[in-house]
Amino acid sequence: MNYDAFLSSTGRQLHESAIRKMGTLAVRIPDLVSFAAGFPDPVTFPWTELREIANELLGGNDGTVLQYGATRGYQSLLEGIVQVLAARQIHSAPDELIVTTGSQQGLDLVARVLLDPGDVVLVELPTYTGAISAFTNVQARLAGVRQDADGINLQDLDAVCQRERAAGRRVNVLYLVPNFQNPTGLLIGLEKRRQLVEWADRRNVLIVEDDPYGALYFDDVACEAETRPIKADDERGRVIYLSTFSKTLAPGFRMAWVTAPAPIVARFELAKQTMDLSSGIFDQRVVDLAIRRGVLQRLAPELRSLYRSKRDAMVSALRSELGDRLTWPEPKGGFFLWAKLPDGYDGDALIEHAIAQRVIFVAGSAFYVDGTGQDRIRLSFSHPDAERLREGARRLAAALEAARVPAASGAARVAGPETSVRSAAAR
Amino acid sequence: MNYDAFLSSTGRQLHESAIRKMGTLAVRIPDLVSFAAGFPDPVTFPWTELREIANELLGGNDGTVLQYGATRGYQSLLEGIVQVLAARQIHSAPDELIVTTGSQQGLDLVARVLLDPGDVVLVELPTYTGAISAFTNVQARLAGVRQDADGINLQDLDAVCQRERAAGRRVNVLYLVPNFQNPTGLLIGLEKRRQLVEWADRRNVLIVEDDPYGALYFDDVACEAETRPIKADDERGRVIYLSTFSKTLAPGFRMAWVTAPAPIVARFELAKQTMDLSSGIFDQRVVDLAIRRGVLQRLAPELRSLYRSKRDAMVSALRSELGDRLTWPEPKGGFFLWAKLPDGYDGDALIEHAIAQRVIFVAGSAFYVDGTGQDRIRLSFSHPDAERLREGARRLAAALEAARVPAASGAARVAGPETSVRSAAAR
Repeated sequence: MNYDAFLSSTGRQLHESAIRKMGTLAVRIPDLVSFAAGFPDPVTFPWTELREIANELLGGNDGTVLQYGATRGYQSLLEGIVQVLAARQIHSAPDELIVTTGSQQGLDLVARVLLDPGDVVLVELPTYTGAISAFTNVQARLAGVRQDADGINLQDLDAVCQRERAAGRRVNVLYLVPNFQNPTGLLIGLEKRRQLVEWADRRNVLIVEDDPYGALYFDDVACEAETRPIKADDERGRVIYLSTFSKTLAPGFRMAWVTAPAPIVARFELAKQTMDLSSGIFDQRVVDLAIRRGVLQRLAPELRSLYRSKRDAMVSALRSELGDRLTWPEPKGGFFLWAKLPDGYDGDALIEHAIAQRVIFVAGSAFYVDGTGQDRIRLSFSHPDAERLREGARRLAAALEAARVPAASGAARVAGPETSVRSAAAR
Repeated sequence: MNYDAFLSSTGRQLHESAIRKMGTLAVRIPDLVSFAAGFPDPVTFPWTELREIANELLGGNDGTVLQYGATRGYQSLLEGIVQVLAARQIHSAPDELIVTTGSQQGLDLVARVLLDPGDVVLVELPTYTGAISAFTNVQARLAGVRQDADGINLQDLDAVCQRERAAGRRVNVLYLVPNFQNPTGLLIGLEKRRQLVEWADRRNVLIVEDDPYGALYFDDVACEAETRPIKADDERGRVIYLSTFSKTLAPGFRMAWVTAPAPIVARFELAKQTMDLSSGIFDQRVVDLAIRRGVLQRLAPELRSLYRSKRDAMVSALRSELGDRLTWPEPKGGFFLWAKLPDGYDGDALIEHAIAQRVIFVAGSAFYVDGTGQDRIRLSFSHPDAERLREGARRLAAALEAARVPAASGAARVAGPETSVRSAAAR
């Protein structure tokens, strides 16, 4: 039976996340080194404290631990998040908060509550694929804005916004990852952040600020003050701020949140009622106690130090195995190294060769909404240990060698990613 | 700042779940007896086994317990669900399964992947409010079908379907809760189930079968054979089957699943990538071990016996406090008693008086898509203990007394539910 006729227009247009696709591959190929997924290093998970917390919660004295709960989130956790935000200079009232099932749900809430088919979302070139998927799956259009070394280019931002509006399209939302952007690792400068709020006010646009990595700055090249969220200076209610415990505690709890003007959060709550009623109740209780017992605060400096050392190991491995064949903007925090391939290489076509060498990454094109990015790849260094980072770099060097552009032809684009990934997965 | 202009058409049309609204009230009013929410009784939660499982999982040997995971679900849990389904006579292949964050997410997946704005979903009169919300929030239209004592009326079903199609509307989906329907507690007869599959095939419709309560039959008036899912006889791939661990293990884990034809599940997976990446990983691991260790199997007969005794306590309390003023179809399983009010009463208006007496329920109108149902209320007996059931019945009697229809006027509809709930909440 063919089900195509039963699909909605959304159902027909769904497309697979490039990152998730790589995840599927990672499971199937033995001894793979994955530079693809932005997984935290599990050595950072606070097992002992989590075991104590789980034991206490499951003591059987409090049925609400495993019961249905409020759609907004567990009250004590919401209060804990208010404190987490205050440490980031964001002062949110309880009615400006909602717990979400991962930040992906926050993006989906933005998509469903704010975007109609055909509406334009302004995004950086490149930008996070999970946002691209969430917005395109409600049939929004994505308009790309040029990026400088200190983040989004304001002149181009205004030009793109005005061009789209002149074409009769609704432009209400700008999506940004100001801290250690996925995929580039860049920081938006502080002065630029202030200008963005003014610009949003002038052009009557809402900023969706996605901040999973803010706590993970590398203190040799960045400092906490540089991560001050745009939301901290949002006096006019222009910013919808998303953050998560996935990178700073553990992703498996799927615990994240949104803070936004109260009327928007009220709409998010109604939408979430139809999406999953509430996020995991036990998960919320665990994270709540982890905050209250200072686990997050204890972990933060350890995480910064660990990921900084992993960045060092990655840079050193790539330099050692690849010399200067790859270049990248210096990541100032987070999980990623955004590498430019040597001239003539195509990241999508390279995947086939990489898989043959048992290493994967995400092709840069997945992060561009304008069809470019073939000359980039995203290398995540957060999960493998130093030895595996080195081994992955070796394999990547071998893949580049195998994919070497023939001197006679500048166009070595032998296969699209779809074809190459499928054939590789079938091996 | 007014945000209305920023909302999508979905964002503007979102409406609050009647059940969730009652939940909000329940938190605010001290000493309330809630007949509103379908909460399992927490005495059934298997604390000791869950504590053992959590301890083991958090031993620190396996980082994947707290890591990101596959969108489809944890492999071992998927295999466990295959076994759970086999016990229900449903034989699903692994590629026909996906784990969801509560069955509400399953309904949302159906809505997003299968329904365009204006599409018609056929539902019973009455039907489950969570489905109404999920479908209307993608701007589908809901067409109500009359219900007999053994569930949906097949003649009316066909007539409504043909009428909607004749009006030029797309009608692809029939939504049903065949086992102990929420809100009526009714069972669809076995012969009728077979006829429904034939009908779906003849009219080229997909059946969404929502089955949270199947295991919870009352063995004095129903038996396991009567709960045989429609999906068990789905040879042509017409049925999308949803079920959950919320009523049989605990709701707090938000663990549910969908089994459907593989091409539809593949679309659900893509949609879920943009909705929450994956359901809670730790939650999946807990439920997986609970299945493997026989916890679910051990619990099932205890749950049946407990809820049967609660039904008895509820019926006895209502008879004792209200005589024959309320009537209801005999619930054959599940959590609800679907009560008809005395002539002239209005369930929506009654809420105000009930709140004044510190008891709540869900007004019947919330379950009807045709604007009727004012003469019904849904009384959930699953959560309060026998003493509270009795106390709630007393308060309900007092509320009926206070709301008594004046002899001179047949229309005692003093206030809509919005007004009454708000004023009560403000007290």
